[in-house]
Amino acid sequence: MTDTDADRELRVSKIRNGTVIDHLAAGQALNVLALLGIDGSGGESVSIGMNVPSDKLATKDIVKVEDRELSQSEVDVLAVISPEATINIVREYEVIEKKRIDRPEAVSGVLACPNRNCITNADEPVETRFAVLDDGLRCEYCGEIVREDEIATHLDVA
Amino acid sequence: MTDTDADRELRVSKIRNGTVIDHLAAGQALNVLALLGIDGSGGESVSIGMNVPSDKLATKDIVKVEDRELSQSEVDVLAVISPEATINIVREYEVIEKKRIDRPEAVSGVLACPNRNCITNADEPVETRFAVLDDGLRCEYCGEIVREDEIATHLDVA
Repeated sequence: MTDTDADRELRVSKIRNGTVIDHLAAGQALNVLALLGIDGSGGESVSIGMNVPSDKLATKDIVKVEDRELSQSEVDVLAVISPEATINIVREYEVIEKKRIDRPEAVSGVLACPNRNCITNADEPVETRFAVLDDGLRCEYCGEIVREDEIATHLDVA
Repeated sequence: MTDTDADRELRVSKIRNGTVIDHLAAGQALNVLALLGIDGSGGESVSIGMNVPSDKLATKDIVKVEDRELSQSEVDVLAVISPEATINIVREYEVIEKKRIDRPEAVSGVLACPNRNCITNADEPVETRFAVLDDGLRCEYCGEIVREDEIATHLDVA
């Protein structure tokens, strides 16, 4: 492999099959891993670039996960924490699908409600559901507000 | 850049200046980030490969941090959580130093003692110090044992 500028730019190499989450807001990569429930102990093959130079953004994060696709709930939360993110599905090193990522009206599951007294924390078979506001989320059961910068700390990775 | 097997093997590209921590035990990359106090919010440029194929190990993790070197305390903790790790210092894309990583006899700082009543948790100007055992660490002040698989949860990243 020649040691060209192009090589240096490509911080994280191609994957064979899986999902590429690109143009993440800088500093969001570890939150995305938490969103996906990945801490490395499960053996998932993952490549991450944090604060890498970007044409579109000044710097960005990028996460490539082999043999994994995102659920709609995961995409919804991603859209809230990093609206500029793009999701590409890769098969045999080729991008076969570019997923649009739109800010959803609501997010179901994935996040836990921070209100301990909320019905969703009461061992009942009730999935969390949050309305998406301009700058955060509102629990549709108890009205608790989760600020946008707090979302990552309420990922329900139990 | 040609799309050769070599490219595909190189999961995380070269860095210009900084530290490459290679041959990490699979699953340890995020613990190493925590050890270095890196969560992405500080703007550090970091590349990570988790569970990538390795010649030396079956799979490994790798962490490349630009414009950053490790303190001796950080190297000591790294030696305990991932004894096979190698540390290379890079300048202008070239490895200028390969650091040996030996299991230390003791680890100072970096880790907090899990015993709340330990003098090191009492707002006194006392740095933590642990003796390194075969399968964990022992606080030299209060005798508290930290098992090897618990070390990452006691990183003092306050």
